[in-house]
Amino acid sequence: MMSKTAFMRYRKDARVHYGILEGDRLRQLEGNPLDTRQTTGTVHRLSEVRALVPCEPRQILAVGRNYRSHLKGRPAPSRPEIFYKPFNSLQNPDSPIVIPAEADEVHLEGELVVVIGRTARNVSLEQAESFIFALTCGNDVSARGWQRGPDQDLQWWRAKGCDTFGPVGPVMVQGLDHQNLQLQTRLNGQVVQQQTTADLMFDCATVVSYISRYLTLSPGDLIFTGTPGATDWLKPGDVVEVEIEGIGVLSNPVEAG
Amino acid sequence: MMSKTAFMRYRKDARVHYGILEGDRLRQLEGNPLDTRQTTGTVHRLSEVRALVPCEPRQILAVGRNYRSHLKGRPAPSRPEIFYKPFNSLQNPDSPIVIPAEADEVHLEGELVVVIGRTARNVSLEQAESFIFALTCGNDVSARGWQRGPDQDLQWWRAKGCDTFGPVGPVMVQGLDHQNLQLQTRLNGQVVQQQTTADLMFDCATVVSYISRYLTLSPGDLIFTGTPGATDWLKPGDVVEVEIEGIGVLSNPVEAG
Repeated sequence: MMSKTAFMRYRKDARVHYGILEGDRLRQLEGNPLDTRQTTGTVHRLSEVRALVPCEPRQILAVGRNYRSHLKGRPAPSRPEIFYKPFNSLQNPDSPIVIPAEADEVHLEGELVVVIGRTARNVSLEQAESFIFALTCGNDVSARGWQRGPDQDLQWWRAKGCDTFGPVGPVMVQGLDHQNLQLQTRLNGQVVQQQTTADLMFDCATVVSYISRYLTLSPGDLIFTGTPGATDWLKPGDVVEVEIEGIGVLSNPVEAG
Repeated sequence: MMSKTAFMRYRKDARVHYGILEGDRLRQLEGNPLDTRQTTGTVHRLSEVRALVPCEPRQILAVGRNYRSHLKGRPAPSRPEIFYKPFNSLQNPDSPIVIPAEADEVHLEGELVVVIGRTARNVSLEQAESFIFALTCGNDVSARGWQRGPDQDLQWWRAKGCDTFGPVGPVMVQGLDHQNLQLQTRLNGQVVQQQTTADLMFDCATVVSYISRYLTLSPGDLIFTGTPGATDWLKPGDVVEVEIEGIGVLSNPVEAG
């Protein structure tokens, strides 16, 4: 296993950069870490920058029902159950999750998120690991009122896809074992989800390999891997944090739309 | 109504350009027509270039069940029923629709496709028209075996999202009345779908306005507006053409994966 490296995408003044995190400093990169490790010589204090979604995906995928603890009597899927989130659902760390006025029962979903490193098409399970560039934290915010029940949409386009329903970050980290990371979600400081990724029914490599049989994955693409246990209702004024061991804490306030 | 202008994105030798179509010539643009109308002075013959998907979307949306003739006993939706197609489902004109070995009952769906011109967030029905940059032809290729029935996925990610399941093009056209265009789909030269967009239950402006209440639309985003009537099964060796009045013909061969 390679040594741990944490990358951040950030805004400093009006400019967007990538950098390597070293303690409380960011060593600025010449470009996207998917392409280069060349540093510029510029170093920023973490406290001086604004963390952004750590990559620029073309495609955002997510897995439903991937922890037994989240099934609640529904049958365990025989294969990864995938859906898409749109680009404009992405939200930066510390920026608000905005609840649309019409949305009913909007829930948090803390998740481990995979960042794809290179073009993956029809990749075997054995090869899949090498297509994973890094891991990050994500919140697959979900409006249950549009996902199920009498006001359900035909597909989950609003339930999972409204603006701000996909916070991701703050860093993406290489050199972790994705098969055994503690995931914890806190709502206003209280722990509401806690589980290890060892409990995923379809692990990161399995999901990458499976998706790539049907859909080519591109560098920077994101895959939300599923949420454990019960999910809590978000209300304006709340703060939700997703913490993953070895990565960090993704924190977002909640606002009314 | 402004005069009709047709834009093409194309490959000439190893380079990708945008151009304005004038008869059988393409007048090369300095950049993306969403940003500029400045021409370079270079003119190509249409016969010398390779047509590509006519824009570069961040998000690809589609409407289900939007013609009464396609309902087949299912209830008419009370609001546009939206879903997402992924970026890598896009396919260029004249390039093959590839049917995965495991896919069952893969159907054509000829559709009018909207190209978004500028950032649309919470846009009223009256304003919506001005956010539509152009119109083009699309084929929302659909694997029915994964969409419904015993082998159904939870969401339509494979049914609508496999590589090559979204041919679009060859041109995008400004200055057309999207409310009354003849759409015709041909399979191996035989007409299999024919209807006017006047029959759409939710027209282009309504769909743009509705989506923008929940999800911000970005310049270049595509919206497939739905398919009329019955849809035919595609087999390797077939050629499928989607023709829309005033736009042109999107033609794709079909291959086995």
